[in-house]
Amino acid sequence: MDPSHVARCAQLAMLLEVSATPKPGNIDRDHNYTDTRFEHFLASAVGVYPVLEKAARSESGAGALIHEAVAESGKWQKGGNTHFGAFLLLIPLVMAAGRCAKITTLQWHARRVLRETTVEDAVEFYRAFSEAGVKVKPVDDLDLGDAASIDKIKSQGLTLYDLMRISCSYDMIAEEWVMGFRKTFDCAGSIQEMVEEKGINDAIVHTFMFNLAFYKDTFIQTKFDSKKAEEVSLRAEEIFEKSFLEDVTDDIKAFDEELLKEGINPGSTADIIIAGLFVSLFEGMRF
Amino acid sequence: MDPSHVARCAQLAMLLEVSATPKPGNIDRDHNYTDTRFEHFLASAVGVYPVLEKAARSESGAGALIHEAVAESGKWQKGGNTHFGAFLLLIPLVMAAGRCAKITTLQWHARRVLRETTVEDAVEFYRAFSEAGVKVKPVDDLDLGDAASIDKIKSQGLTLYDLMRISCSYDMIAEEWVMGFRKTFDCAGSIQEMVEEKGINDAIVHTFMFNLAFYKDTFIQTKFDSKKAEEVSLRAEEIFEKSFLEDVTDDIKAFDEELLKEGINPGSTADIIIAGLFVSLFEGMRF
Repeated sequence: MDPSHVARCAQLAMLLEVSATPKPGNIDRDHNYTDTRFEHFLASAVGVYPVLEKAARSESGAGALIHEAVAESGKWQKGGNTHFGAFLLLIPLVMAAGRCAKITTLQWHARRVLRETTVEDAVEFYRAFSEAGVKVKPVDDLDLGDAASIDKIKSQGLTLYDLMRISCSYDMIAEEWVMGFRKTFDCAGSIQEMVEEKGINDAIVHTFMFNLAFYKDTFIQTKFDSKKAEEVSLRAEEIFEKSFLEDVTDDIKAFDEELLKEGINPGSTADIIIAGLFVSLFEGMRF
Repeated sequence: MDPSHVARCAQLAMLLEVSATPKPGNIDRDHNYTDTRFEHFLASAVGVYPVLEKAARSESGAGALIHEAVAESGKWQKGGNTHFGAFLLLIPLVMAAGRCAKITTLQWHARRVLRETTVEDAVEFYRAFSEAGVKVKPVDDLDLGDAASIDKIKSQGLTLYDLMRISCSYDMIAEEWVMGFRKTFDCAGSIQEMVEEKGINDAIVHTFMFNLAFYKDTFIQTKFDSKKAEEVSLRAEEIFEKSFLEDVTDDIKAFDEELLKEGINPGSTADIIIAGLFVSLFEGMRF
């Protein structure tokens, strides 16, 4: 598939996700954090373009590409980490899309890309992590970014896929790697089902609420704890169920305000939405 | 200059402009028209990327590149014309940026690109116009897009620059061609002066208000009449002057609502802001 087309699908996925509003707790077109703002996400999505195009032409090197994506995104804005988790999903998806002869084989190719990752990919991923300054739970006893951990990865011969297997029980991005993008493709289906009737913004918001309701956000879990992540999901579920009976716009907005006030951002859920939007656009969605 | 870098500056300029809010009368992150929405502008800016990169590598063919930009932008969204006027400014600027060895010679190169346009460029521009369905005053007695006009262009040997000279008295985009991007570079200066203190959104809004106050928007003039365009500028000037004494956020919002209600969109002013943002980013502005 044309690398430029694939890269543009990924770029537009990032832009549509950050624009969709209200998206409880996260930055959107109407909500900023103090140091990280909506415009930083726009600049990051623009800056990373050549890395995405390169990924669509690459047969290997997922780790280095993730590293490069984080670096390039950082050169274009001063808002800090914007798309780290998203790149973890997008880079392998974009590599897979570049291999596809037909749009229907994306998931099959994606699963292969993940399993073909190497020890070098794991090392590059670790380097990207330490540079991005992302707050995450270290993988097992490997402190992210520390030199000793890189030695351990090498001596144990751990690939990037192996690292994801180790952390998949407490990180939903890693789980996507291991489960072959199950939530991602579910999201893509949900968004495409709704886009005609609801418009693109509301299709994204509704899909976001569904995911938050039924899958505990592991970014919240890492930043706070498991109880907090469960509380957020329960509240999202209440609103999601109510949405079948009446208009819940005000409930979503109130929920958004609550989360923003507490600094609770369901970042991993947003990353999966980006991946789902990429799949939707790659499969031909227009609006 | 690296074509990918130049293309990304142009793309980010389009995204920052459409996001900036409140921008009286125009689509922004908080305001849509019925058929054309914020997301259509995002998709257009993404879709056009390869044409921008090609333009940054091109020594000639401005007309065909404008035509191609309009076509590619249209393939990625169903909202109709989004960036026609912007492409008229961006394509020659991007071509010029591609030629620059130093960022300081952009305006010099841009003026040469305009004067090197040919009859073929004029013909391609006419074709793009008729396909985009833009409402504009025909150039002189040349009905835009009609076959007889294309014959007339050819028989009279009119270049694209000649067409702009003919229409520069009643079209501010054409005036930019003839005056060598004077307003564009003024905008760039204004935005860069303010970005640190006000942040990128407010730097754009303030520059937009300045331009609307002191230069009658010719898109409004063509859609309505000269009197309406003057009224809008007078109102903008009042608010702009008041902004030196007190906070005018509420005035700008009220003005925005008035214009949106009447369907008055200062589209040409927005196009010049996009061009000014491109120059700012090309000159190294970060935020």
